[in-house]
Amino acid sequence: MTGRDGGADIGPIGEYSPVVILVRPQLAENVGTTARAMANGGLFHLRLVAPRDGWPQERAWFASSGAHRILDNATVHETVADAVADLHHVFATCPRPRHIVKTVMTARGAAAELRAAERRNLRTGLLFGPERAGLDNDDMAQADALIRYPLNPDFMSLNLAQAVMVMAYEWWMAQDGTPPKTLMTNETHIATKGELENFMSHLIRDLDECGFLRNEQKRPGMVRNLRHFFQRGEVTEQELRTLHGVVTELTRGRKAKQASNP
Amino acid sequence: MTGRDGGADIGPIGEYSPVVILVRPQLAENVGTTARAMANGGLFHLRLVAPRDGWPQERAWFASSGAHRILDNATVHETVADAVADLHHVFATCPRPRHIVKTVMTARGAAAELRAAERRNLRTGLLFGPERAGLDNDDMAQADALIRYPLNPDFMSLNLAQAVMVMAYEWWMAQDGTPPKTLMTNETHIATKGELENFMSHLIRDLDECGFLRNEQKRPGMVRNLRHFFQRGEVTEQELRTLHGVVTELTRGRKAKQASNP
Repeated sequence: MTGRDGGADIGPIGEYSPVVILVRPQLAENVGTTARAMANGGLFHLRLVAPRDGWPQERAWFASSGAHRILDNATVHETVADAVADLHHVFATCPRPRHIVKTVMTARGAAAELRAAERRNLRTGLLFGPERAGLDNDDMAQADALIRYPLNPDFMSLNLAQAVMVMAYEWWMAQDGTPPKTLMTNETHIATKGELENFMSHLIRDLDECGFLRNEQKRPGMVRNLRHFFQRGEVTEQELRTLHGVVTELTRGRKAKQASNP
Repeated sequence: MTGRDGGADIGPIGEYSPVVILVRPQLAENVGTTARAMANGGLFHLRLVAPRDGWPQERAWFASSGAHRILDNATVHETVADAVADLHHVFATCPRPRHIVKTVMTARGAAAELRAAERRNLRTGLLFGPERAGLDNDDMAQADALIRYPLNPDFMSLNLAQAVMVMAYEWWMAQDGTPPKTLMTNETHIATKGELENFMSHLIRDLDECGFLRNEQKRPGMVRNLRHFFQRGEVTEQELRTLHGVVTELTRGRKAKQASNP
């Protein structure tokens, strides 16, 4: 079995999702890791302009972690003009644009534009330059706009597949509705305030019994602090059952100890 | 000269920027590419928990594309508990959390929390699991919350350095103010409406002369369409000078031709 057999499912293929165009890529491994990053972000269409070592290259399939369908369907083109001929909008990634008058977008801004174009059934493309030199001025003149990632200006060395990853990630995020923060509960439910109160009563009753709350002046504040602690985040029914058990068993342990040491 | 000499400047080091903690990393190359991704996003602090092949490893420095300062300052720890002991908040990256009741955040949501903690001078950490297995349940129990990237659920194979890249990118973006879309003009200025009108007059005068606008009924609509075209995006003073030249030279060429072919 070679690296080109099989491969993973990569999910549905958006007909109008952006075409990733690698211009004069040098290392076949980077074409493979690019395909992997594309699969991560739900991109499918890959085109190669004049790959240095020719195409296909077995090493790309090995480096793709199963994103074989993307590589199997990749097409090779002699020029950027040929690779973009059937596209409506083309954006060029460019870390250090100079002497150019052109619209510049962030990756996030570009992702919004690409999604808007997708909704209009327009075919879009993203140009990525060769590993060392990046896109040249003639390549960039083929693009409607440039994409420049806001990243550390003091360390600009961005791996090709990492550059594709950031864009693929923003493409995915531009349609994602995951809330930024949620409590994940797979098999149990969030406790109601009544269930929480039921536990608090259990706890306070046992703390009263063992004498922890014997200082009448401090008691209200101590109870309130405990309440604040157990209200800090959402608590699940399962966690409350465990907490009931903790309190019961600690109490029982104490009583057993008292019984054996009268 | 070995890979460990020299290295690139990576810019200012945020004292309260999150610590990246690689738990039981297997390949030294991945530690190096992780350092490179950290530098891209302005992260500096790296800790390794029980790296499989020991530490230091020359290959990490070679793979880091110059992010040597991060590797030079990385510390090694026997356990996750030891690696997080001085931190205030710890988030664990976890692509497929199961049977866990915990807060789950997107990378973007987590970046906002990390920036908020930074403003409070709290030390934060990000746990990343080993290449194949990811973090185990005990690792995750050390964390305040989990981070799950919204990415293609049909292709979950995410390279370790790519996972770090997404988080480092969101960390950088959480404080970045770059507008999503702007016209970049390095050495020239956007033309005023008056300068644009000056060019339009030049163009229309020459088009009248050559007879292109001879149909009196269609003339207003044609002029309006030309106006719409030249108003589509921002135009620079330099581009207007070029356009003036284009019109002048086309007119002169026509006149010269008329003169030679009377």
